Amino acid sequence: MTPVVIRTDKRAAASVIADLASLGVSTTHEAMGRLGLMKPYMRPIYAGARIAGNAVTVLAQPGDNWMVHVGIEQLKPGDVLVVACTADNTDGMFGDLLATSVMARGGIGLIIDAGVRDVRDLTQMGFPVWSRAISAKGTVKATPGSVNIPVVCAGALVHPGDVIVADDDGVVVVPRLAAATTAAVGRQREANEEDKRRRLAAGELGLDLYGMREALAKAGLVYRDEPDA
Amino acid sequence: MTPVVIRTDKRAAASVIADLASLGVSTTHEAMGRLGLMKPYMRPIYAGARIAGNAVTVLAQPGDNWMVHVGIEQLKPGDVLVVACTADNTDGMFGDLLATSVMARGGIGLIIDAGVRDVRDLTQMGFPVWSRAISAKGTVKATPGSVNIPVVCAGALVHPGDVIVADDDGVVVVPRLAAATTAAVGRQREANEEDKRRRLAAGELGLDLYGMREALAKAGLVYRDEPDA
Amino acid sequence: MTPVVIRTDKRAAASVIADLASLGVSTTHEAMGRLGLMKPYMRPIYAGARIAGNAVTVLAQPGDNWMVHVGIEQLKPGDVLVVACTADNTDGMFGDLLATSVMARGGIGLIIDAGVRDVRDLTQMGFPVWSRAISAKGTVKATPGSVNIPVVCAGALVHPGDVIVADDDGVVVVPRLAAATTAAVGRQREANEEDKRRRLAAGELGLDLYGMREALAKAGLVYRDEPDA
Amino acid sequence: MTPVVIRTDKRAAASVIADLASLGVSTTHEAMGRLGLMKPYMRPIYAGARIAGNAVTVLAQPGDNWMVHVGIEQLKPGDVLVVACTADNTDGMFGDLLATSVMARGGIGLIIDAGVRDVRDLTQMGFPVWSRAISAKGTVKATPGSVNIPVVCAGALVHPGDVIVADDDGVVVVPRLAAATTAAVGRQREANEEDKRRRLAAGELGLDLYGMREALAKAGLVYRDEPDA
Amino acid sequence: MTPVVIRTDKRAAASVIADLASLGVSTTHEAMGRLGLMKPYMRPIYAGARIAGNAVTVLAQPGDNWMVHVGIEQLKPGDVLVVACTADNTDGMFGDLLATSVMARGGIGLIIDAGVRDVRDLTQMGFPVWSRAISAKGTVKATPGSVNIPVVCAGALVHPGDVIVADDDGVVVVPRLAAATTAAVGRQREANEEDKRRRLAAGELGLDLYGMREALAKAGLVYRDEPDA
Amino acid sequence: MTPVVIRTDKRAAASVIADLASLGVSTTHEAMGRLGLMKPYMRPIYAGARIAGNAVTVLAQPGDNWMVHVGIEQLKPGDVLVVACTADNTDGMFGDLLATSVMARGGIGLIIDAGVRDVRDLTQMGFPVWSRAISAKGTVKATPGSVNIPVVCAGALVHPGDVIVADDDGVVVVPRLAAATTAAVGRQREANEEDKRRRLAAGELGLDLYGMREALAKAGLVYRDEPDA
Repeated sequence: MTPVVIRTDKRAAASVIADLASLGVSTTHEAMGRLGLMKPYMRPIYAGARIAGNAVTVLAQPGDNWMVHVGIEQLKPGDVLVVACTADNTDGMFGDLLATSVMARGGIGLIIDAGVRDVRDLTQMGFPVWSRAISAKGTVKATPGSVNIPVVCAGALVHPGDVIVADDDGVVVVPRLAAATTAAVGRQREANEEDKRRRLAAGELGLDLYGMREALAKAGLVYRDEPDA
Repeated sequence: MTPVVIRTDKRAAASVIADLASLGVSTTHEAMGRLGLMKPYMRPIYAGARIAGNAVTVLAQPGDNWMVHVGIEQLKPGDVLVVACTADNTDGMFGDLLATSVMARGGIGLIIDAGVRDVRDLTQMGFPVWSRAISAKGTVKATPGSVNIPVVCAGALVHPGDVIVADDDGVVVVPRLAAATTAAVGRQREANEEDKRRRLAAGELGLDLYGMREALAKAGLVYRDEPDA
Repeated sequence: MTPVVIRTDKRAAASVIADLASLGVSTTHEAMGRLGLMKPYMRPIYAGARIAGNAVTVLAQPGDNWMVHVGIEQLKPGDVLVVACTADNTDGMFGDLLATSVMARGGIGLIIDAGVRDVRDLTQMGFPVWSRAISAKGTVKATPGSVNIPVVCAGALVHPGDVIVADDDGVVVVPRLAAATTAAVGRQREANEEDKRRRLAAGELGLDLYGMREALAKAGLVYRDEPDA
Repeated sequence: MTPVVIRTDKRAAASVIADLASLGVSTTHEAMGRLGLMKPYMRPIYAGARIAGNAVTVLAQPGDNWMVHVGIEQLKPGDVLVVACTADNTDGMFGDLLATSVMARGGIGLIIDAGVRDVRDLTQMGFPVWSRAISAKGTVKATPGSVNIPVVCAGALVHPGDVIVADDDGVVVVPRLAAATTAAVGRQREANEEDKRRRLAAGELGLDLYGMREALAKAGLVYRDEPDA
Repeated sequence: MTPVVIRTDKRAAASVIADLASLGVSTTHEAMGRLGLMKPYMRPIYAGARIAGNAVTVLAQPGDNWMVHVGIEQLKPGDVLVVACTADNTDGMFGDLLATSVMARGGIGLIIDAGVRDVRDLTQMGFPVWSRAISAKGTVKATPGSVNIPVVCAGALVHPGDVIVADDDGVVVVPRLAAATTAAVGRQREANEEDKRRRLAAGELGLDLYGMREALAKAGLVYRDEPDA
Repeated sequence: MTPVVIRTDKRAAASVIADLASLGVSTTHEAMGRLGLMKPYMRPIYAGARIAGNAVTVLAQPGDNWMVHVGIEQLKPGDVLVVACTADNTDGMFGDLLATSVMARGGIGLIIDAGVRDVRDLTQMGFPVWSRAISAKGTVKATPGSVNIPVVCAGALVHPGDVIVADDDGVVVVPRLAAATTAAVGRQREANEEDKRRRLAAGELGLDLYGMREALAKAGLVYRDEPDA
């Protein structure tokens, strides 16, 4: 692999990104047709954050965070840094100094298929991170990788400029050209859910609300009373 | 397996359940003779919840939450929904709409050997869940399973009507007919602990409080002073 | 192995320990030359604690916490109890009664390569624990191990009297004789970081601050503009 | 738990067991309605063995193989020893001496949700074992468990006298009273497979053999030719 | 996701594929610039197989092998079936009947990020499989997925028509358009290795053969004789 | 950490090493008092090998095999190369060229807490390896580590010159100064086993051979006949 940095201006529209942030991960993932989700080992370092932004992608070597510095230069305001690794690794490739730099560039968060450290500081700074591990293990700066190439991060394919949505439920990737449609489908889905929520809260069963009884019977489901014993 | 729903009224007494809730998981597990504990990968989605209730059991297929809807209809006030899966799976089989439905039926919590989603909403609703994963991954409704049959959930055997106790330490299953005895043993154990706690806080050593020194010596334990070096 | 308890007075100086506590795990680990870190599966039971203290080491059998009682007697004020296990195990070998006893001896925390229970109580007591698991699983008191021998705990070698530093980033072990030097190096490092943080916050890039551009070019990194597509 | 040994003569019929052995794990599991399978981490120590026999169950403590000795006395010719553990453990609880003893009693194999050792000797003896790990780690004989009580082993419920079928595909548990029916269903299934195998080998597609095309179309599947690019 | 099957004739040249098969996975992966490798949990069901072929990709649901049947129809002689799953799953989605069908179509092997069964039969048939698990767990045929779309399989991106190389070292994916160049680079690399192998076998050190001593010294490596002790 | 290579002549006696090789891992581990065993994830790349030799230790960075080259120069005939890593890593840090070099120096095998590749070639060469993974993933040569310092490898402490014993049961470390005593204890243990094996094969139970019945009864074990049901 020739190490390369691709400079690109491709971004999704800000209003679409705002919509996806408001929908959150689970609704966006459904609106995507249940695709694009990262593996569930990706967890936030603190609860409650919800972000959406364009991906700047980094492909790094295990135990080496050199390319994270390179990637930060490519961030534009509102972007999310997405770090994939050429092999499974949990080293703490990112800490409070790098977060300071990301924030100075207008970056709004980090998705990293490796470890992160200084999590107490990051939490106090309000800088959200989704990672596979928390680890103080320091890294070297020895071998280049690439920035803004397509990467597989935590099992999901990410192109630079794709929209990353992340919250307590995980991280989902929305292809840039599908972002507007996905947001529209998601808003429609959310509207439908409001009515369902009201009816379910009133005691109506999903079995009836979704009309499942016939299909279940056809699939062979039977009901029996437990015999006295 | 013929998919089946067993309707049953078997429940443990409310006062016994209240006792077990107040004892919590670790004391109940000890009172059970150290049996009935689910694997420690079952974790609460938020800290501090402690519940006890009768189990309504669900056996579902991986990636398919159809039977959760079926199970909810069998809940009575105070019950706990227990979802096992025919294969290891982390998909988000349960979210805020289903929780709304469970609460409307009087259900008090969920134990699921799979994933859960909408955890921010569930936390705000105060609906406690113990799961093996948090994941936005959506599921299908295609293949029936069963409700209120005995299931193995996270390594523990659960019969419908067994009492589930869950808190920050994990999840323990108390067979229905053993619930009253377990509660009594647990209360006795707790009373004994109060005295021990007072004496340990005063500086008495467990070695003396429990009279371990002789047995340790008999088992071959020796004491040596470190040589100057 | 003959089970043995070594009585020792070897401790690092209190002022050095206080320095390491203030530096925290990630900085201490860097000051150590990136050595001595426990595996990242060691997690705190609650966020925000940061401790440093001399290690009293325990080697226990899986599912057996007898030696924890023995170890507590060897604690001096300010010490940290470090429990290793002869085989991977997640049982809850430690709970609120043992914590009461540790605190009565002046111990300030627990590092355990196994499980812990009563975490709600431990949190309310403000007793910090770093463990590989949370589990209510009770243990026996049947087979002796040793106290204050060198142990491998979560992948790190710990000698009695070494300084343990633990916070949200994990756990690091500083050999007793290296503690003063490590603290000095760490303080120097921290001082340097302050200036870097200020410059990064002002928008200066790490690429320039650390002078990486030349080395990256020499390593073959190239920049390309994305073609219009 | 009061440690107990249950003496029982309950066994399935030898001819049924022979049938199940000849069907193997995957066919038996299908004939069971896809239930009763142990987790796939249970692997044979050498390839090619296929056994079936009545279960003698052991519940042991982690790192303690005392009850294995107790269980061996309860074996009758043709039986399979099934060892569950009260907590996840990989210690080598069983080796060539115990295998010698099992074979002397007529036992035909071991299923153990823990570790095994002396695997070179066991292989030379032709003694098949399915385990979660291979480990030389020795165990103590300190704490009793039980023999011939129902146990959960590798996620499957096993009653004493149930038929265990094990081969390269894993381990499945057939309840004693369901064994004859399961064997009959399995033989029927196997007969059907022969015809299918012949037709598939001749190039007929499963899509046509099983008549799936209509259902797939109804489920929304569409076919498209890739555009030239 | 609209379930879709893409019909495509895109294949790499047979001679290039034969070259890659002869190079094997490790050399091909190096020739690719150390990209395209699947996670190391992908293991062959028997040792010694080495294959290369064009990928026909399948995206399936967890516990559902319906789309495997659909994918087989798209196989051409020499192709490799590559099955990805929308969520982590170890169920036995493929067995000897499906292998019979694949072989009848001229398919030469299976790569599956899930489980496989009937491994004894598959081994006897000489049908090579690389999978994440071996499991008898049966699957349903209920929910469609897609065939010949790009998939992420075991962490690697696979487009239909990419060349899959698999042997005892794992599985690597070579993009179709990069296949010829990769084969050429790999052959060159292999030629170089022959000379190195001869010199190393003669006792020359890698330190000298690769001229590493100066760079190591510059990187700070020092040599010391152990003091007598 | 200053990267350093320690040159040392410390070795255990050849006759002692030969004894330990003949005893194998499980007996040696018992003779050590059940200490010194590496984690059971360390597996041989092919079955049947059994080696013992003095350790030459390497501490490497994740994804970087530079120090393996450095370590090979320190090998003497009969030595075993032991590679630890500063962080969990599965990359293929070692292949057939390095094995050729090790063999040319008289080295007899490799223990590596990371990945290995070219396993088909290594098997044909008869070069035994115990590793945590098999992976084609290539590594860089960028950052120095150390050779012949004490390392923690797969959970076990290894000093240069310690005796490594490895076979199908795993890997055990015998401190150099304890090697002769361990071999003597092991031979004694093996002699005792011969008599036990003969008696067990004749049908005598371990319960009687080891006189366990009284202790079991004292520990509370009771026997019951299953009631007719």
